[in-house]
This record gives sequence, structure tokens and C-alpha cells, in this order.
Amino acid sequence: MPIVNITMIEGRTEEQKRQLVKKVTDAIVETCEAPPEAVTITILDIPKTNVANAGILRSDAGRK
Amino acid sequence: MPIVNITMIEGRTEEQKRQLVKKVTDAIVETCEAPPEAVTITILDIPKTNVANAGILRSDAGRK
Amino acid sequence: MPIVNITMIEGRTEEQKRQLVKKVTDAIVETCEAPPEAVTITILDIPKTNVANAGILRSDAGRK
Amino acid sequence: MPIVNITMIEGRTEEQKRQLVKKVTDAIVETCEAPPEAVTITILDIPKTNVANAGILRSDAGRK
Amino acid sequence: MPIVNITMIEGRTEEQKRQLVKKVTDAIVETCEAPPEAVTITILDIPKTNVANAGILRSDAGRK
Amino acid sequence: MPIVNITMIEGRTEEQKRQLVKKVTDAIVETCEAPPEAVTITILDIPKTNVANAGILRSDAGRK
Repeated sequence: MPIVNITMIEGRTEEQKRQLVKKVTDAIVETCEAPPEAVTITILDIPKTNVANAGILRSDAGRK
Repeated sequence: MPIVNITMIEGRTEEQKRQLVKKVTDAIVETCEAPPEAVTITILDIPKTNVANAGILRSDAGRK
Repeated sequence: MPIVNITMIEGRTEEQKRQLVKKVTDAIVETCEAPPEAVTITILDIPKTNVANAGILRSDAGRK
Repeated sequence: MPIVNITMIEGRTEEQKRQLVKKVTDAIVETCEAPPEAVTITILDIPKTNVANAGILRSDAGRK
Repeated sequence: MPIVNITMIEGRTEEQKRQLVKKVTDAIVETCEAPPEAVTITILDIPKTNVANAGILRSDAGRK
Repeated sequence: MPIVNITMIEGRTEEQKRQLVKKVTDAIVETCEAPPEAVTITILDIPKTNVANAGILRSDAGRK
């Protein structure tokens, strides 16, 4: 512990994920007194057809 | 908030998801006094080989 | 399946939850061709000190 | 209920999953007084580029 | 990895949880070639007012 | 989106959580080109009796 699940729209590069997990782990270590090896992060990439806000699919957002 | 995660067997169409997120958002707005734009929904489609009930994979259900 | 996890700020009444699960189940049955008894819903109530948007705890939102 | 979500690195075979859900269901039935048909299990397979420990992606682990 | 999240109705004893995590870990080690120390399990206890099946709260189930 | 769920052992202070969500949001904004207001974070505090590693409850860890 801590376990961090990050759900985001698919499309980030492996390099972005590399930086993301590094910085998120640092943030947790700095603020929660957890050693780095205690922090597990999973990333769930989901398509725009599987995310909605205000009742509208992200894949439909911006369409008239 | 609220955040709604819906996990279901893969196979629903984009149109079904369009209707699903619309109606689920309406249900939350009507009952929980949350504005539509506060409601985020994610859908996780998973294969029948990754779901089980009573110890049996859905992909095996119905096989003798 | 489907399984629905709803995470929201604590404070809704049991009656609101009664209506919420009824309407969300109806929404799923109508749009996803799932029988009502296949739909499982869990509700996670969390305090304002455990939710953040734009880097600010909900419990701090609105404070100058 | 109970609902069990298992997140693991992608690559297990269907047969491994068949055995996994059987044994995990047995474990829950034996210890938690839940009937088998009450136990739902979902498995989320994720790539090594989407998992990190100690700030390092699993896909980078072992690289100099 | 693997990470196992178990959501269940509140009320199990610490001893039941002790047995549960032991047997679930064994099940994963036996079937998925994961060492025991790689397996993390979290248990989420939720009240009957926060669980529903077929649109009915568990706390209402059995009431006429 | 992105949505971040952080599960950790209960006991962190509100001030630690204030710093945690600020730094985790910054980490995501810097690496994933997401505006701060798009980032939602939830924190789930769980007791040591509800977490296990290597088949042992955290509340039992260190006991002979």
C-alpha cells in the first residue's frame, strides 16, 4: 500500500506513463510517509466511447 | 462526483452505450441532487473469459 | 453482470439510495438487454476530505 | 456479493483463469459463509506498460 | 501484482478475514505462478444499504 | 478524466491528504497534458484488518 488506480482516455505514450508513475510515486512518498517500493500504480486506458460526462459520451462531445 | 464505473461483458454497441450513459446520468440527477456535469461514467468491457459466477467462467457456462 | 460501482460524497439518505438503485437498474435493463437480477450495484460513500478536483480537496473548496 | 476484482499482468491462459476462479470461489465459500452462486469474480488483464512499483514501469524493470 | 479487491457485506470477523486472505493468496499462487509476496488483497466492507441486486437494496430484500 | 483512486491504510491527516492531492494532480498535469480541473481524485482509507500481503493481514504483520 498505497495502491493507485489511474483511469484515463487511451492514447498516452509509454514515455508519458514512465514520467507519470515516477512523479505520482514521488508525490505519495513525499506526503504520506510511504517508501517507494510500497507504492503500486495501475493505469487503465479506456476509449472515448467508454467515458461520459453530463450524460454524453466523450466520443460524441463536440458533435452537433 | 458522483463517479460511476460500469463493468459489463463486451459486445454492447456504441448506440447502446450512448443511451446507457444518458439514462444512468438522468437516474442520478433525479435521485441524488447532483447536476449532470458532476456525473462521470466509465464503462469497462470485459471478455467472457474474465468473468465468473459460482466458480465457473462465463465462457464455460452452458458447456457440459 | 453488469456490475455498477457508484462513488459519491457521503450524506444521501437511504430513501435516495433506494430510488437511485431502482432507476439505475431500469436504465441498464432498458439499454443493455440485461435482466434486472443480473445487475449488481454497490455504493461507496466517501467524506469530502477524501475527494479532490483540480488539486483541491472538496472539504477545502469555497474556502478563501 | 461478494464481488472480487483481480487485476493482473496479461498473459495467463484461459485454463489458468478457469482454475483461478474455481479456487478463489472455494476460498470465499469456505471462509465467509457465502454460497458459490453469490460470488462474482472479474479479471482485469493489464500490460506491463500499465503497472508500476517504486515509480518504475514493470516493462522497464530489469533494464539498466 | 496480482491485486485483489474483495467487496462484501460488512460483518465478517477478523478471523474470517485472516482465513480468507490466506486461502485466496494460496489460490492465486497455485494457479497463476505468482509468488505470495506479489499478491496484495484489499477488503471493502459495505453496509446492506449500499448494495443492490435487481434494483432492490439488500437492506430491503425480504421486506414485504 | 483522468480519475485517480488511491487506496491506503487509514491514519493520514487531512493536511497530508491536502498535499497529496495537490502533488498528484500536478504530476498528472505535467505528464499527461490534462488540465487540473479534469483530474478527479478519490481516497479510500482502509483499516489494517482489511489489507493483506503474502496471505497475511497487515494487522497481523510483525506478530509472532
